[in-house]
Amino acid sequence: MYAVILAGGGGTRLWPLSRAQRPKPFLPLLDGGRSLLQATVERLAPLVAPEDVYVVTDVRYHDLVREVVPALPAANIVGEPMGRNTAAAVAMAGHAIDRPADEVMISLHADQAIADEDGFRAVLATAGERAQAGDIVTVGIEPTEPATGFGYILAAGEAAPYAGRDTYRVERFEEKPTAERARELVDGGRAYWNAGAFVWRRDTLLDGLARHAPDIDRPMRDWFATPGGDIASMYATLPERAIDYALLEPASLESLVAVVPASIGWSDLGSWSALRDQRGGEGSPVIATEGSARVIDAGSRNVLVHAAGGRTVATVGLDDVVVVDTPDAVLVISTAAAQDVKKVVNLLKDEGSDLL
Amino acid sequence: MYAVILAGGGGTRLWPLSRAQRPKPFLPLLDGGRSLLQATVERLAPLVAPEDVYVVTDVRYHDLVREVVPALPAANIVGEPMGRNTAAAVAMAGHAIDRPADEVMISLHADQAIADEDGFRAVLATAGERAQAGDIVTVGIEPTEPATGFGYILAAGEAAPYAGRDTYRVERFEEKPTAERARELVDGGRAYWNAGAFVWRRDTLLDGLARHAPDIDRPMRDWFATPGGDIASMYATLPERAIDYALLEPASLESLVAVVPASIGWSDLGSWSALRDQRGGEGSPVIATEGSARVIDAGSRNVLVHAAGGRTVATVGLDDVVVVDTPDAVLVISTAAAQDVKKVVNLLKDEGSDLL
Repeated sequence: MYAVILAGGGGTRLWPLSRAQRPKPFLPLLDGGRSLLQATVERLAPLVAPEDVYVVTDVRYHDLVREVVPALPAANIVGEPMGRNTAAAVAMAGHAIDRPADEVMISLHADQAIADEDGFRAVLATAGERAQAGDIVTVGIEPTEPATGFGYILAAGEAAPYAGRDTYRVERFEEKPTAERARELVDGGRAYWNAGAFVWRRDTLLDGLARHAPDIDRPMRDWFATPGGDIASMYATLPERAIDYALLEPASLESLVAVVPASIGWSDLGSWSALRDQRGGEGSPVIATEGSARVIDAGSRNVLVHAAGGRTVATVGLDDVVVVDTPDAVLVISTAAAQDVKKVVNLLKDEGSDLL
Repeated sequence: MYAVILAGGGGTRLWPLSRAQRPKPFLPLLDGGRSLLQATVERLAPLVAPEDVYVVTDVRYHDLVREVVPALPAANIVGEPMGRNTAAAVAMAGHAIDRPADEVMISLHADQAIADEDGFRAVLATAGERAQAGDIVTVGIEPTEPATGFGYILAAGEAAPYAGRDTYRVERFEEKPTAERARELVDGGRAYWNAGAFVWRRDTLLDGLARHAPDIDRPMRDWFATPGGDIASMYATLPERAIDYALLEPASLESLVAVVPASIGWSDLGSWSALRDQRGGEGSPVIATEGSARVIDAGSRNVLVHAAGGRTVATVGLDDVVVVDTPDAVLVISTAAAQDVKKVVNLLKDEGSDLL
């Protein structure tokens, strides 16, 4: 097996720490200042060695990948000339990475946290075995609440065990639901969160792309057949489409997609509030500092303080607040309003601010 | 009448904005970036013109006085070579400022806010009239709660009206009380907060100091009698004593002190929470910016944000929080815990930090 990690940019939910110049996968968000990308590589290690791990990312993040995952061979960084969404990135990985046609590829995102790493690898092993048989296999996160912020994978039919774990056929995918529909899906017991983790043989992927996404697959295939062309010009012609729409959904209609249910403490760390919870911040403050920054707290609770501005941050008597200090911007946000950081980001976008 | 404003340093309750280099009276805390010292001078103006207003301050703050009150003649700044508490500062004013012996002097602090300025001037006019008769007159703030953070003035006897307003003899002073004692004092109806505002004839002051505080008065008198000596050496010999202990208390035992009760919206702005309330911050956020700093708020309530760090401060969904941003330190504090800023300050003091 080999693994492809998609390390893209653009996320602003962890602003002001997350910036165009250093997006979420490259930030020191975890214990000991580890990045999510580093954690993603490390948790694969017992199953997939670093020399079999590849990172697909915008070329401008090449040096960031080297910085946060020095163990990864430089040749394993696949640079995209620009971001064209995940279908293009996965197609790039399928064509550019020279592995045997029948080898199993794991495709993952770099910006998620997983508490049960052993459980995650067991799920991948099961997925790998089913993928070896020719299926497109998804990892389906067992929902812990009727979340409206994720897409859902709907399973059907009898359990088919692989490597000692049940798998199911995927009937279809459903986009981010309303609250009412989310409740129905979760109560039904056959719906899982789509974590964007997919497992397939390389030839399964390439065949699927050729059939379902020829407008992405053909330019890519042609470019690799006659190297030396301008990859940026080719890339600019590609439609921006998610791999879920481009491949997973049409393939599911042909009953070619499977799901491995997983209860592994997964989080997409989609807000400062989620990060605080993931870092164990219910109770004593979670404090992260970069460089010469310092944090002094007196009596706060349920608080995350990330100090990256080289200054002293003092927090006193706070409850359910996140403080993020950077050299040019500071955010102080109630965890209950953590999603509203987008209001600030949208205002800055409208202004063309250089704080993004 | 002439007025003497004591503009000292040392306060840390508004850290990190208040620093040894720029203490509370010189900070742009009020609407339009006005300082408390400027506001103190301006509210005297209809009663006492700027050319009759003097500021006693540590010589190192001379330029700060010029900066925040350019209307004040430079000759009206009386520089102390070092801070030796208020008895020395008042004695300095008494000796150094060349006014007629029977002229009435108002002595005030520079770090307080007063909502009802007309009422305040009416109180001073009454105090001035009673002082003209030879009394030491205090301004007694009608308590709005049984506060334990202030000293109390205890009135006795019949009302004696001056300029259409009642005044009373002061029986004695009582230092910061316990909560129980504060309740008794307030319920008794004859106790007032001591705002440190005193009115006396110049000769009343100097005679009182000579009798009750000769260890302060004599070195000062000798130095002014034979100018050219080293004022710092003289000052260093003075005991550090508050004028309340040095003069007011002993004089009250001789029934020489009077009080004018005042209900004038007085606040000593002794915490970030008090400043938020004074700025009308119950409800929409109060936002203050210095220089290129900027504040973006989304949906906060009961919040004060003071941005003086040249950066963007974003606040989202906060309630009852104060955020203070400076170039080298940021404070985020629950208003309910506003007094606990001293915990941070004490820690920094113990370290000999240059953030104070």
